[in-house]
Amino acid sequence: MINTSYKAMLGGKSVIRQLSEYATARKAQVGADHVYDFSLGNPSVPTAPEFTEAMLDLYAHDDPVALHGYSPSLGITQVREAVAASLNQRFGMNYTYEHIFMTSGAAGALSHALRAVTKPGDEVVTFAPYFPEYHPYVEGTGAILRVVEPGEHFQINFDALERTLNPNVTAVLINTPNNPSGVVYSDATLTKLAAILSAKQTEYGHDIFLISDEPYREIVFDGQNQPYPSKYYANTLSCYSFSKSLSLPGERIGYVAAHPQCTDALLIAPICGQISRGTGHNCPPSSIQLGVARVLDKTSDLRVYETNMNLLYDALTDIGFSVERPGGTFYIFPKALEADANAFCMKAKDYDLILVPSDSFGCPGYFRMAYCTTTELVERTIPVLRKFAHEQYGL
Amino acid sequence: MINTSYKAMLGGKSVIRQLSEYATARKAQVGADHVYDFSLGNPSVPTAPEFTEAMLDLYAHDDPVALHGYSPSLGITQVREAVAASLNQRFGMNYTYEHIFMTSGAAGALSHALRAVTKPGDEVVTFAPYFPEYHPYVEGTGAILRVVEPGEHFQINFDALERTLNPNVTAVLINTPNNPSGVVYSDATLTKLAAILSAKQTEYGHDIFLISDEPYREIVFDGQNQPYPSKYYANTLSCYSFSKSLSLPGERIGYVAAHPQCTDALLIAPICGQISRGTGHNCPPSSIQLGVARVLDKTSDLRVYETNMNLLYDALTDIGFSVERPGGTFYIFPKALEADANAFCMKAKDYDLILVPSDSFGCPGYFRMAYCTTTELVERTIPVLRKFAHEQYGL
Repeated sequence: MINTSYKAMLGGKSVIRQLSEYATARKAQVGADHVYDFSLGNPSVPTAPEFTEAMLDLYAHDDPVALHGYSPSLGITQVREAVAASLNQRFGMNYTYEHIFMTSGAAGALSHALRAVTKPGDEVVTFAPYFPEYHPYVEGTGAILRVVEPGEHFQINFDALERTLNPNVTAVLINTPNNPSGVVYSDATLTKLAAILSAKQTEYGHDIFLISDEPYREIVFDGQNQPYPSKYYANTLSCYSFSKSLSLPGERIGYVAAHPQCTDALLIAPICGQISRGTGHNCPPSSIQLGVARVLDKTSDLRVYETNMNLLYDALTDIGFSVERPGGTFYIFPKALEADANAFCMKAKDYDLILVPSDSFGCPGYFRMAYCTTTELVERTIPVLRKFAHEQYGL
Repeated sequence: MINTSYKAMLGGKSVIRQLSEYATARKAQVGADHVYDFSLGNPSVPTAPEFTEAMLDLYAHDDPVALHGYSPSLGITQVREAVAASLNQRFGMNYTYEHIFMTSGAAGALSHALRAVTKPGDEVVTFAPYFPEYHPYVEGTGAILRVVEPGEHFQINFDALERTLNPNVTAVLINTPNNPSGVVYSDATLTKLAAILSAKQTEYGHDIFLISDEPYREIVFDGQNQPYPSKYYANTLSCYSFSKSLSLPGERIGYVAAHPQCTDALLIAPICGQISRGTGHNCPPSSIQLGVARVLDKTSDLRVYETNMNLLYDALTDIGFSVERPGGTFYIFPKALEADANAFCMKAKDYDLILVPSDSFGCPGYFRMAYCTTTELVERTIPVLRKFAHEQYGL
């Protein structure tokens, strides 16, 4: 008998995915140039040439039996060592390979990290707006997702956080730079968050792990750096993906890095390995592990995202939208021009503008644009946005 | 707080893995040539050159944005179409891409298939001897694994099966060619199994899915073919991995093929996609999907496994072991020379013979040898086996 709970989930198809499918169909109708598709967070720039060169070299010169052989279930040791060394050099940490667990992208990293430090019935706190897939990641563990309402400039609303924290909370899930808002948590935000969580750990008499979702770590604007959350709070599991930095979303490669001073630091990776046994994940592909290990400090040419952000932010502001200027990612999250963001995005579709309403991000009344597109598309989109805002909302 | 149930699993390290680690350490001590390591099922022959050529071509000539872009969560449509076409041509099936779900190897395939058709508390029946990881796969779904004792020649013991079946059983899990016995289920076995399951479905008034674990499908000896279990029973989910046929165990690539006439046939793949959302699996790597799709009907040069099997089978029989002749795989499963297979394998270690005792396969008193090694190693091992059997057991 088909499992009815999974069957029931089939109706709940992602809004983003639905819009992306609509956009694809519409492009076939009217031509790709006439659809202004900002639905999907799929990187638009090629991977770093050094990654392609590394893979060509591995395929051309390595012993295929070793190249494609079983990876240990925690990841290939030399790859884990390389990840630790790269993080240590960049952020002044003291990871060893034993703190690193290789995963199938950030989805795999978050799913393992959440299972490692929660048990069914626990509560996991996150902050609106948040990536909608946090629901299946958290609920797949048997835990309950609690959402804290947005703070000013989409930093953390600490009053709301303190109201939400309770002794059932065993993990707090953050995402900075943030999808969908593009906001980067400041040093002040991370410092205060760490202080509150430390105090609550003492008050409750148990650990509260900070699970830090960091796939946009390298896409930060204005020459800034993303403050590294693990520097602020010892009980942090840093969850990473190479999907955005190296434009490899299809290759499913990332990691969990357990802070060397977190509780049971040397058990996190082995426990993640045990979790894998039951879910059938095992480990990311061996050749891709070996390939990324050679280019850990490289990225794709990410400059287009900042160019696109500046063009869009200036245009949206000029048109009259209320919008927070993104500090990173390839998303922007303006306020819709009417209270119902779904209605707003439906009207935009009549202009072939594909915008994602914000309800599924837990923050009604906004919309997300994924500007991982060509700059030329952004430039062609601006007059269409202007026309839409003028004709529909008199701006 | 670390999840204590996963923490408890850490003690239960796989016997196979422990022996393999011992063998690696011992090789460092005395030299690789002096350790007769038959512990791990890691293919010893390189992948098909056509796979390497396909990957080099993809990396050299494909648009990297498309090559490494997000795969749909059910797999890349053209890859699913190619898998369906290959199975149809080979086995006279009528799959379409909609019946195929791409997975991270057989582990991913089994974990998804089991979750799709069972619910927590259901019972899943399998047959001794069985692959020890069936425990985490089945228990990870919340179902209970019931084991049927071995039949003659390691075919199915149908009396024992009928005693084990009950209305809580919603899935039966088979593995042919079998790890560890090397036995291939005959046409008669599969015909009778299908008849019993069909009758029980009627009696219980609900589906019983046959989950068929087929990573050794292409490693069959004496010019025979493995009968395709899906041809015998409509409610079959065929779970495949390219790990053994193409020597790609580290690349984590396989699929579930839902029989087009099974219950809710068109829902199986989408439901597997929903399962992925909660486990963080998502889909296998895009480039590897595209690579294997180009070489679906190729295999590594698998002949060494048959050569090794014949040498080992003849020698073991000659020495005086009681052993079933394998019809496929790269395993052989002789009876130990004393009742306690653990004690037997411990004594063998003194001869640097690394043999796996059978207890974790649910079938005490036997041992497994994985002869995915060079023929030269097999030839050098035979006198050592002979010496061991003579000195320890007087054969």
